[in-house]
Amino acid sequence: MSGPATNGLSSAEKAEVLVEALPYIRTFFGKTVVIKYGGAAMTDAALKEMVALDIVLLRYIGMNPVIVHGGGREITDVMRRLGKEPVFVNGLRVTDGETAQIAEMVLTGKINQDIVTLINRGGGKALGLSGKDANLVVARRKAPEAVAEGDAGIDLGYVGRVVAVNTEIIDVVCREGFIPVVSPVGCDDGGATLNINADHLAAHLAGALAAYKLVVLTDVDGILKDPSDPGSLVPQVSIAEAREMIGGGRIASGMIPKVDACITALEKGVPRTHIIDGREPHSLLLEMFTNRGIGTMIIGGQGWSPSDVAGTVSGARR
Amino acid sequence: MSGPATNGLSSAEKAEVLVEALPYIRTFFGKTVVIKYGGAAMTDAALKEMVALDIVLLRYIGMNPVIVHGGGREITDVMRRLGKEPVFVNGLRVTDGETAQIAEMVLTGKINQDIVTLINRGGGKALGLSGKDANLVVARRKAPEAVAEGDAGIDLGYVGRVVAVNTEIIDVVCREGFIPVVSPVGCDDGGATLNINADHLAAHLAGALAAYKLVVLTDVDGILKDPSDPGSLVPQVSIAEAREMIGGGRIASGMIPKVDACITALEKGVPRTHIIDGREPHSLLLEMFTNRGIGTMIIGGQGWSPSDVAGTVSGARR
Amino acid sequence: MSGPATNGLSSAEKAEVLVEALPYIRTFFGKTVVIKYGGAAMTDAALKEMVALDIVLLRYIGMNPVIVHGGGREITDVMRRLGKEPVFVNGLRVTDGETAQIAEMVLTGKINQDIVTLINRGGGKALGLSGKDANLVVARRKAPEAVAEGDAGIDLGYVGRVVAVNTEIIDVVCREGFIPVVSPVGCDDGGATLNINADHLAAHLAGALAAYKLVVLTDVDGILKDPSDPGSLVPQVSIAEAREMIGGGRIASGMIPKVDACITALEKGVPRTHIIDGREPHSLLLEMFTNRGIGTMIIGGQGWSPSDVAGTVSGARR
Amino acid sequence: MSGPATNGLSSAEKAEVLVEALPYIRTFFGKTVVIKYGGAAMTDAALKEMVALDIVLLRYIGMNPVIVHGGGREITDVMRRLGKEPVFVNGLRVTDGETAQIAEMVLTGKINQDIVTLINRGGGKALGLSGKDANLVVARRKAPEAVAEGDAGIDLGYVGRVVAVNTEIIDVVCREGFIPVVSPVGCDDGGATLNINADHLAAHLAGALAAYKLVVLTDVDGILKDPSDPGSLVPQVSIAEAREMIGGGRIASGMIPKVDACITALEKGVPRTHIIDGREPHSLLLEMFTNRGIGTMIIGGQGWSPSDVAGTVSGARR
Amino acid sequence: MSGPATNGLSSAEKAEVLVEALPYIRTFFGKTVVIKYGGAAMTDAALKEMVALDIVLLRYIGMNPVIVHGGGREITDVMRRLGKEPVFVNGLRVTDGETAQIAEMVLTGKINQDIVTLINRGGGKALGLSGKDANLVVARRKAPEAVAEGDAGIDLGYVGRVVAVNTEIIDVVCREGFIPVVSPVGCDDGGATLNINADHLAAHLAGALAAYKLVVLTDVDGILKDPSDPGSLVPQVSIAEAREMIGGGRIASGMIPKVDACITALEKGVPRTHIIDGREPHSLLLEMFTNRGIGTMIIGGQGWSPSDVAGTVSGARR
Amino acid sequence: MSGPATNGLSSAEKAEVLVEALPYIRTFFGKTVVIKYGGAAMTDAALKEMVALDIVLLRYIGMNPVIVHGGGREITDVMRRLGKEPVFVNGLRVTDGETAQIAEMVLTGKINQDIVTLINRGGGKALGLSGKDANLVVARRKAPEAVAEGDAGIDLGYVGRVVAVNTEIIDVVCREGFIPVVSPVGCDDGGATLNINADHLAAHLAGALAAYKLVVLTDVDGILKDPSDPGSLVPQVSIAEAREMIGGGRIASGMIPKVDACITALEKGVPRTHIIDGREPHSLLLEMFTNRGIGTMIIGGQGWSPSDVAGTVSGARR
Repeated sequence: MSGPATNGLSSAEKAEVLVEALPYIRTFFGKTVVIKYGGAAMTDAALKEMVALDIVLLRYIGMNPVIVHGGGREITDVMRRLGKEPVFVNGLRVTDGETAQIAEMVLTGKINQDIVTLINRGGGKALGLSGKDANLVVARRKAPEAVAEGDAGIDLGYVGRVVAVNTEIIDVVCREGFIPVVSPVGCDDGGATLNINADHLAAHLAGALAAYKLVVLTDVDGILKDPSDPGSLVPQVSIAEAREMIGGGRIASGMIPKVDACITALEKGVPRTHIIDGREPHSLLLEMFTNRGIGTMIIGGQGWSPSDVAGTVSGARR
Repeated sequence: MSGPATNGLSSAEKAEVLVEALPYIRTFFGKTVVIKYGGAAMTDAALKEMVALDIVLLRYIGMNPVIVHGGGREITDVMRRLGKEPVFVNGLRVTDGETAQIAEMVLTGKINQDIVTLINRGGGKALGLSGKDANLVVARRKAPEAVAEGDAGIDLGYVGRVVAVNTEIIDVVCREGFIPVVSPVGCDDGGATLNINADHLAAHLAGALAAYKLVVLTDVDGILKDPSDPGSLVPQVSIAEAREMIGGGRIASGMIPKVDACITALEKGVPRTHIIDGREPHSLLLEMFTNRGIGTMIIGGQGWSPSDVAGTVSGARR
Repeated sequence: MSGPATNGLSSAEKAEVLVEALPYIRTFFGKTVVIKYGGAAMTDAALKEMVALDIVLLRYIGMNPVIVHGGGREITDVMRRLGKEPVFVNGLRVTDGETAQIAEMVLTGKINQDIVTLINRGGGKALGLSGKDANLVVARRKAPEAVAEGDAGIDLGYVGRVVAVNTEIIDVVCREGFIPVVSPVGCDDGGATLNINADHLAAHLAGALAAYKLVVLTDVDGILKDPSDPGSLVPQVSIAEAREMIGGGRIASGMIPKVDACITALEKGVPRTHIIDGREPHSLLLEMFTNRGIGTMIIGGQGWSPSDVAGTVSGARR
Repeated sequence: MSGPATNGLSSAEKAEVLVEALPYIRTFFGKTVVIKYGGAAMTDAALKEMVALDIVLLRYIGMNPVIVHGGGREITDVMRRLGKEPVFVNGLRVTDGETAQIAEMVLTGKINQDIVTLINRGGGKALGLSGKDANLVVARRKAPEAVAEGDAGIDLGYVGRVVAVNTEIIDVVCREGFIPVVSPVGCDDGGATLNINADHLAAHLAGALAAYKLVVLTDVDGILKDPSDPGSLVPQVSIAEAREMIGGGRIASGMIPKVDACITALEKGVPRTHIIDGREPHSLLLEMFTNRGIGTMIIGGQGWSPSDVAGTVSGARR
Repeated sequence: MSGPATNGLSSAEKAEVLVEALPYIRTFFGKTVVIKYGGAAMTDAALKEMVALDIVLLRYIGMNPVIVHGGGREITDVMRRLGKEPVFVNGLRVTDGETAQIAEMVLTGKINQDIVTLINRGGGKALGLSGKDANLVVARRKAPEAVAEGDAGIDLGYVGRVVAVNTEIIDVVCREGFIPVVSPVGCDDGGATLNINADHLAAHLAGALAAYKLVVLTDVDGILKDPSDPGSLVPQVSIAEAREMIGGGRIASGMIPKVDACITALEKGVPRTHIIDGREPHSLLLEMFTNRGIGTMIIGGQGWSPSDVAGTVSGARR
Repeated sequence: MSGPATNGLSSAEKAEVLVEALPYIRTFFGKTVVIKYGGAAMTDAALKEMVALDIVLLRYIGMNPVIVHGGGREITDVMRRLGKEPVFVNGLRVTDGETAQIAEMVLTGKINQDIVTLINRGGGKALGLSGKDANLVVARRKAPEAVAEGDAGIDLGYVGRVVAVNTEIIDVVCREGFIPVVSPVGCDDGGATLNINADHLAAHLAGALAAYKLVVLTDVDGILKDPSDPGSLVPQVSIAEAREMIGGGRIASGMIPKVDACITALEKGVPRTHIIDGREPHSLLLEMFTNRGIGTMIIGGQGWSPSDVAGTVSGARR
């Protein structure tokens, strides 16, 4: 296993780290956390394995982690190998029937199963699911995408939006100790396969599962005050502030769906949402079990307060 | 829905048919049946839909159907589209790493999900599983395949055999009313993807689940006394007779893995195994709920006797 | 077993009939249906056995059938053998203490146990209950019956009306797979045996059990537009229409308690009530599992609509 | 309520009586006791009510009482009213089809329901059962009864012996707090009604239920050393002694089936069997909760010893 | 075991006493009763053992007894042995840190364990608890006690009042058949040990457990109309009357906390509260199972009415 | 909270420490560990609090910790304050009735409750128990202690040995998430209070609970090869070696009961036993979650092997 060597630490320091985690473990016990797995954390072999171990750890200490993954790059690769050139409108893939089928094979038949295998090898019991399995996701085709104001819009084809989530299968398997890993594919009423944006799906799952947290792993530090200055990370914003930043063009276009997903989850009652840097080793654990915190937390009306973590944690979280 | 019109039947005849099914329903109540879905039943759209409805019906009348599917033809199609020419040894696909990955995408990411969708649309709650999910299948690479007596054999690559089946996930989801649909893909201890013969997998699943029946859907009538005479169907053979027929070269090579799967299941304690013609509409229901019976039943020591179906069925089954 | 021979049907036709039943099976799964067993269906040996098999089938495919039976003719027979001539007022039996005891012996000690035995022999697990058992029915003596407007009425003696139903025993035994068969006998607060009209009891049981259906088996086709014309069957009426027909004297007096029972059940929230012809073999299955339907359905405010049966049923029900 | 007035007792004496019962309550907690209800206890109104109250009390203090009743006298009454003269061979009723039907009506439809009503009115939840209900009793016709040594015997007709007991329904309803009251009627494989000796049935039920006690209520003090001397009550005998007394003609013929029932129950593993005088008010409670004991206890190999009742009871039981 | 000899009673009288208890047993079945154990009942060895047996009896006949004990005299004894002279203000002990520690050792480490052992030896399964165990009691320090009107009051030190009761541990162990015995010791938020008045604790426990009864054992007959006349026992008073008596100085100061506890329990929804004379043998049983009743019952708005005890009890209770 | 500051550690190091604990967490999941709390870990305020936090952590990550404590020093203190001079024979306290009572008050009423409070304040749900509660421990008086070979021995008085452990209460409360804290006090058949050696009790509890580990906290490093050389710690010994060391006088007398307890537990089937240094902060976590290990492990036949901890731990444990 890669990661910074801990050989230099004394045993006492190691024990102290475990004890420092106790207030967080207590707070998170029995809670559901939806983790959107994407970017480098899903493409770099060492990072991928670390995230899998982090997830197994969350399960063993009493949480219900639920994973949602994307996979845009690999879909593009396979499409090209099959001689199809991808087309994007406003950053969204135009998805004809054949593209939807390729996407499903890559997402459900490859990426999902890779994550399942990694978690199983780390000692967890992962179960791959698509939105089709057990009628998990009720989806419908998205409306055409406007490219200029007032135009009729371009039909994106087999791209879905989530209409409802039927959590029965996730409830059943979490109760039995499994870790669900969800592929962002569903179907419409007529049975046609639909590709679903993974951030959007994660937000709806988090809402339907009454999750305690949504954590989105990305390839950036978080939301930056000044997109050109990596040192300008904003540790916390409200929904209102986030919307204002998007309106003012101050959030990079790649980041917008992630911010939207957090806002959707918050509006559906999820109390905490986070956009964190998946390139940092064990970023998930850092976010959850240390009082440094990482990335940007987007909060609703009341937001987080130090008293949420009971007990011996004296300092403020961030 | 296709199938013979029943408009000509009187209501009384229809009711009588339902009542005739009662002794079978009573006998099968609460039992597990493993169904190997393959051939025309999986490629012809109308047949595929009928099998899905038959499976939903089995579930509603109190059985636990567990589905295993294959998918050789579609793997070959996708391989060719990607510019790879399949190679077979003794009818078994030589499977390099890339082929294993293509097979997984097609099996787990396409065929499995198509069956799941059909069952769901028929009113069931299907759940797609691979051998990787929830550590369902423990597999190992097959030994090299000898082509001539005494040679070192040809390494088939990433082709697996089943070492053990961990039925926990199937037990959990059957108890909750779901219908598991299993894709014949697993991984070895090192996490490498292995392609598994679906008949072989179905036999091991049936054994591990203590199934009451294994039903293999094929594209032939059953075992023929004279392979060239379709009228020479053998309704029932013992393990010993089946082995003798194989030894004497009297069973077509494509049929051998199906017969082997039945023998494996019988040896693992499954009391009934059937090879039936999936091209016949509702062949699954005919086999299970009428006293005509179809295809060939392979039996172990004691075999089936009319008294197994209690109650008002007066005639012999076959 | 009697009934129309199905030997002329092809196996494919038989399978198709089973599949046609699927949408109904799905709709009825887990639901309670109260069946008032009476008339020819209870006196003709062959019909009686068929109804028993139909009930066992309902149980095996996931419903909770609850049976209520009458028995007026046999009570009269036994009374005469004991030298007592029955007296009726407005079609209701005047019931002195001795008559009540004879009725109880015949209903609870003979007819009930015959039905229990038939169901058990058909493979079910029937349990005979009276309204006294486990305090199932709380009853009180009926008010005197007026014969002419304004008179003081004639005291019917030990004839009861249902005040409340205590469903505990039925809930417990249905959960465990038993089929309750209820005899229309109860007692008042002082422990005196009361004879209860079976239609009236069935209606109250259906209401208390939140049944999905009440089906009353009779010896007529259903409600006729013109009582003298058997071809004038009314397939469906609303409560208002039924009341109007009774008011207008257009419903035969023997049918009135059955219609009243349906109205009572509808008012207690049972969504569907049916009066069907028990002389027709397997009338119960015809009513429930074919799209011909039989008899008259009495409905409340909204009534039945084709969309209630989900899935592949294309035609309207009736 | 009749019975000796307790008005003369001080409150302190009353409390002391309750406390004296504690060691017995503790010993009997959760145990099943089968009570054969017969004789005066079933015909005298005041006694009948007392037994019902005693049974309710047993249930409330944590036991599972199961009642079996007979009813010979009332069967004879009704037969005579219907113009049939009973015939007995060796004290056993010759039972033609009509007699069997009359017996069933009287036992299941009258006597059983009277007891059910009394228990319910005493605050219990009684459930009437026959041997037919829920397939409780598997019975077969008795062999012909020899009247002289070596003769072919006289066919008793529809008289049954118990082949097996299927305790499922009793297990289910006892777990839910009900008190089963069993009528001695069953049927053979062909569905023909069989009259069963109630002592014989009680013994088999006690064995199948692994009861802690069988208590047979009779109209005599117990087994007498000298049948003509009421003062010669034998408080305890072993199986061997009882058999010797029967062989020596020293047990009255009416008592023999009761002694046989006790022996059968002991052989089936019931540790304690008692024949007590049902004419004594609250004889059931006296037998169970006071250290005087009443009637005759028949014991197997080891017999009862004072240490069976733990705790503060200092004196020997009898 | 001491107590009045019952040898003079006939067996019939004993049985009658048991049957007389039935309506009470039925009424109390499954109910929780909180018993404040104090005074002579806790110091006289014979009485102490009787109360323990009474409690075991309550448990066996289906109630959930919960015990709270005090222990002032023994605390004073141990304090004096350790050279500390107790100080009281308004009858309340001034409790410095050392006194609180001594009180805890005596209450939790001695008196509690003595009661536990007595109950266990009587055949129950007692479990000692303090207010600290399983966070049972949330307490806070009492406000200073005023000695004269308008003064600043005297700080009583580590004396607590109940802020909340967390019944989880009691719910769990009662469900499993244990008898909780609670010591009146708790701690504040900072973990400092607090001595709690046992009457006050019993009242709050009874309220939090939704108990059916609170019974306070004392060393007096009950509330007297004229404190100097032992014959002037008031069998029943309302809250209003009790308050008026306290206001008028007509209730002895030692009795006031007991009356206050009853009023608190009534206000928290406990329907019945009793102050009874623990010096009378088996006073608990007399209060609960005979229609003489003892001591004073304090009632809220509606009070007790004879119809609360269903069934055969004909006379009024008191 | 004291302990080494972790402020110098990077967040990445902290996360890595958590991940390193995963294989241990996985191995210990659902297992019971009995912890004998004694020495400095119980007298030093900071250490005491750390051990409490460690125990809460074990509970949250899925283990069932069960605590047993001693308390010799505090008993001596209170005895002296009460004017009693302790007497020891072979290091064992001579315990007259008064001493037993003082010991009980100190152990059950003070030390036990202090530990309960600390665990509760750390976020756990602790429940204090003595050997008397719920009949947890069946004890008998120890035989007299020989001081010289062949003498009659000196009666130690009220000192007990464990005859049996009745784990019901511990099973019930562990299943509900509580942490039992057991005081080493019991009683004999006659109800007399017995003082029990805490190491001896811990060993018997571990055996009866089928614990995975017994951990004994002491004030030394572990077993030393050379008692005078603190650097000569023996990391692991077999039962045979330990016995040989005791026989050869090479184990300090204070250590002998701890080694005996480990041997007893091993003989009762506990697979791992440890004597560790409770003076080291978080020694419990160090022993369990780091691969350094501390103290001495005493093992039975097979002993520990690195493969017991599955997964990614590459180095040997010790």
